[in-house]
Amino acid sequence: MLDPTFVDKLVERLRPEAVLVSPHHVLVYECDGSTAFRQTPDAAVLPATTEDVAAAIRTCVEHDVPFVGRGAGTGLSGGATPAEGGVVISLAGMNQLLELDLDNRLARCQTGIVNLQISKKVAEHGLYFAPDPSSQSACTLGGNIAENSGGPHCFKYGATTAHVVGLTVVLPTGEVVELGGPQDGVGYDLVGLFVGSEGTFGIATEALVRLMPKPESVKTLLAAFRSMVAACEAVSDIVATGIVPAALEMLDRPTIEVVEAGVVAAGYPTDAEAVLLIELDGAHHGMERMEREIRNACEARGAVSFTVARNEEEQARLWLGRKAAFGAMGRLSTDLYVQDGVVPRSRLPEVLEKVGEIAARYRIKVANVFHAGDGNLHPCIPYDGRDEEERHRVLEAGREILELCVAVGGSISGEHGIGREKSSYMDLLFSEHDLNLMRALREVWNPAGLCNPNKIFPTSHGCGEAMSLPSVAAVPGAWI
Amino acid sequence: MLDPTFVDKLVERLRPEAVLVSPHHVLVYECDGSTAFRQTPDAAVLPATTEDVAAAIRTCVEHDVPFVGRGAGTGLSGGATPAEGGVVISLAGMNQLLELDLDNRLARCQTGIVNLQISKKVAEHGLYFAPDPSSQSACTLGGNIAENSGGPHCFKYGATTAHVVGLTVVLPTGEVVELGGPQDGVGYDLVGLFVGSEGTFGIATEALVRLMPKPESVKTLLAAFRSMVAACEAVSDIVATGIVPAALEMLDRPTIEVVEAGVVAAGYPTDAEAVLLIELDGAHHGMERMEREIRNACEARGAVSFTVARNEEEQARLWLGRKAAFGAMGRLSTDLYVQDGVVPRSRLPEVLEKVGEIAARYRIKVANVFHAGDGNLHPCIPYDGRDEEERHRVLEAGREILELCVAVGGSISGEHGIGREKSSYMDLLFSEHDLNLMRALREVWNPAGLCNPNKIFPTSHGCGEAMSLPSVAAVPGAWI
Repeated sequence: MLDPTFVDKLVERLRPEAVLVSPHHVLVYECDGSTAFRQTPDAAVLPATTEDVAAAIRTCVEHDVPFVGRGAGTGLSGGATPAEGGVVISLAGMNQLLELDLDNRLARCQTGIVNLQISKKVAEHGLYFAPDPSSQSACTLGGNIAENSGGPHCFKYGATTAHVVGLTVVLPTGEVVELGGPQDGVGYDLVGLFVGSEGTFGIATEALVRLMPKPESVKTLLAAFRSMVAACEAVSDIVATGIVPAALEMLDRPTIEVVEAGVVAAGYPTDAEAVLLIELDGAHHGMERMEREIRNACEARGAVSFTVARNEEEQARLWLGRKAAFGAMGRLSTDLYVQDGVVPRSRLPEVLEKVGEIAARYRIKVANVFHAGDGNLHPCIPYDGRDEEERHRVLEAGREILELCVAVGGSISGEHGIGREKSSYMDLLFSEHDLNLMRALREVWNPAGLCNPNKIFPTSHGCGEAMSLPSVAAVPGAWI
Repeated sequence: MLDPTFVDKLVERLRPEAVLVSPHHVLVYECDGSTAFRQTPDAAVLPATTEDVAAAIRTCVEHDVPFVGRGAGTGLSGGATPAEGGVVISLAGMNQLLELDLDNRLARCQTGIVNLQISKKVAEHGLYFAPDPSSQSACTLGGNIAENSGGPHCFKYGATTAHVVGLTVVLPTGEVVELGGPQDGVGYDLVGLFVGSEGTFGIATEALVRLMPKPESVKTLLAAFRSMVAACEAVSDIVATGIVPAALEMLDRPTIEVVEAGVVAAGYPTDAEAVLLIELDGAHHGMERMEREIRNACEARGAVSFTVARNEEEQARLWLGRKAAFGAMGRLSTDLYVQDGVVPRSRLPEVLEKVGEIAARYRIKVANVFHAGDGNLHPCIPYDGRDEEERHRVLEAGREILELCVAVGGSISGEHGIGREKSSYMDLLFSEHDLNLMRALREVWNPAGLCNPNKIFPTSHGCGEAMSLPSVAAVPGAWI
């Protein structure tokens, strides 16, 4: 329970309507897209300005109350969950594009702006914001910054960190600082360090982001294969040509089946073991040649079909299956566990085979839909959360998949972050020394530990607790 | 003077021939390319392995002796100068490419490897290492990592930080850690933070770097203009087309004159006020169209000539003037002060005009040769260092140029780093709060402060001391 003088102070420093304390108002902030991690906050505040955020944080610090920033709550690792209660600071109302610098292709935005809104607002100038997580119609820039979000087109253009050049940050002490700037390459890279710090270094309220010129031409291709191994080998062959596609996305047979059985069939061949969705962008000239080289690479690996979208409508249709895949999996069971691991691209065939073996051994289903170009796997495990024994098997299989990723030189997360979900897996990747170095850096930014506590780092809680299963099935139109 | 037991311990832990203490052996380590900052170290060690580096650092820590890592000593901000004496740890002998992963286009190298050697060693596979500081035939990967070095082609491909995915680092405590890795996007971005930390966070001994496929086609173009303003406007127009050249380099009339008066004339038109050197790379297809668009943009701004290199030899000739520019300036005076500032690209014409005004007011000559695409200026000021009054005017002009850069939203360094040279300018860009945040981060990595002390941060020394003039004229074939 919060001290009433704390709430009074928040109301006085912000506005009465900006402070929510009734249990039924704050319930909406109990979790993000990773719904297995729930914790109702004691209060939520709705700041309108950087000064509001600073006032809220200063009040929390004065009363030793933990706090966490939140965008749209579309995250998939429990990053915005108020793990120790306290205050959720919702940036959703701070959603303006403040300044557009066309000459230098930069936009200053409040961080509550929805990712896709940035691109919509600058479209008339032939520009767009490149990071495109599948949740981009809902997720906010601030969440993208916290998680260093990726997306299909980050294969070519890099994740969020490559597109953020400056930040206004309210530090966990309540002080406001400006980090970086349009021309800043001086001193330690504080912007680069802040991006991807999962909300543990403070709350960014404004960001200066790079805009990119829209490509003159876009081509969307779909190749179908008789085996996943052949499809993965085609990916390596395509990369080896030197062509850098804008996206290289893979869906396996179980995913194709569930997509095609869904409300909006994308027209993927249902007898294929894997389909590879390839997007090229750039100048008109050269597109034909790149298409031809990619077709050759796919056919050399035995592609059974190769479709080229003829117009924007057909492009959208080819993407539809990829974008609707996670939502469609809702038909498979009551719950869905979406893993997020990374392996070297060259190890994809072998790892996917082993994922299949792990699934067979644990008697679970796995559907794979993933960013093949980056080697970023999303094994999706549908299960019935009411069946404790099944739930346990899924959990064990998930851990084994991540151990496999690490064993081949990969990682335990490609783009969803560690948050609450994977903090107990950090020791798969990092020595105690590495973790202590990271903890010491957190101490510098977040000395009182009140800013998004109980995230990223392993705690002394039992393994079972930390490894409770996240689920995205309850979230309509889940985004990965 | 060093404690003899310290030296004995170094010899015992490394090898006698790996420890230099005679004044005439260590003299070579007294400065880098920024020769105005000199400090003879007490000893130099020549490690052959990561373990040697760790042993040297542990010995320094046990005896409270400062130390600094050094590559080829080509830096231009005094980053490798042993500012407080102690030990220079020279990585020059650790110069092997250890592992080549062609499938994933990664190379593991010892950090003493010369930048250009990486590209030479992987050329047979059609690959290269993208960062290309002008010193690339001499500078080492480790120095590039410390300074986050740029180069002409970083306009398109990004500076060193975009090309390093993993590091083996000996921390300032002597412990060895592995940071990052091929698939690592988990936890705080320690690799990104280490790159550009100017040798204050430890010594990287191995790095896993990205390799890029060589472009199918390269085109080198040279446009000459009647005014610098027109040339700068052409740069903005070229960028506005959406074409991303691999390089966009500018030379002004004083630079052209000195280049053409040199031993190797590049054939630049001597009646032009500015020449713009443009390089395009990519697929064959589309090159003609890009060339045409760029020619149109230049001609619309009144270009008086437009040259297209017809073969590799002509390409090399067009680059020759740019690459030889700094060396050629040795003819102008006994000393040369090369500034390194950044401004938003759109402000280039106005800033260059004001730089001219500053030069006139201080009665000095300025020759400009710079990375126009990045807005990264290198005003070069030839002067006679024996004339104290002239030296003072140059110093004041240099500071005014940097103040101008900051005033238009730019920065005090584009690629040379802060080192010793610019530590007293940091307050132009950063608040005391920002600097304290950076100091606290340094404390985490470098708690005893023995690792490359007296760099980056303003000290309590008087302004005059910290602002003593660097000079590159004494260094043959100076590299910028």
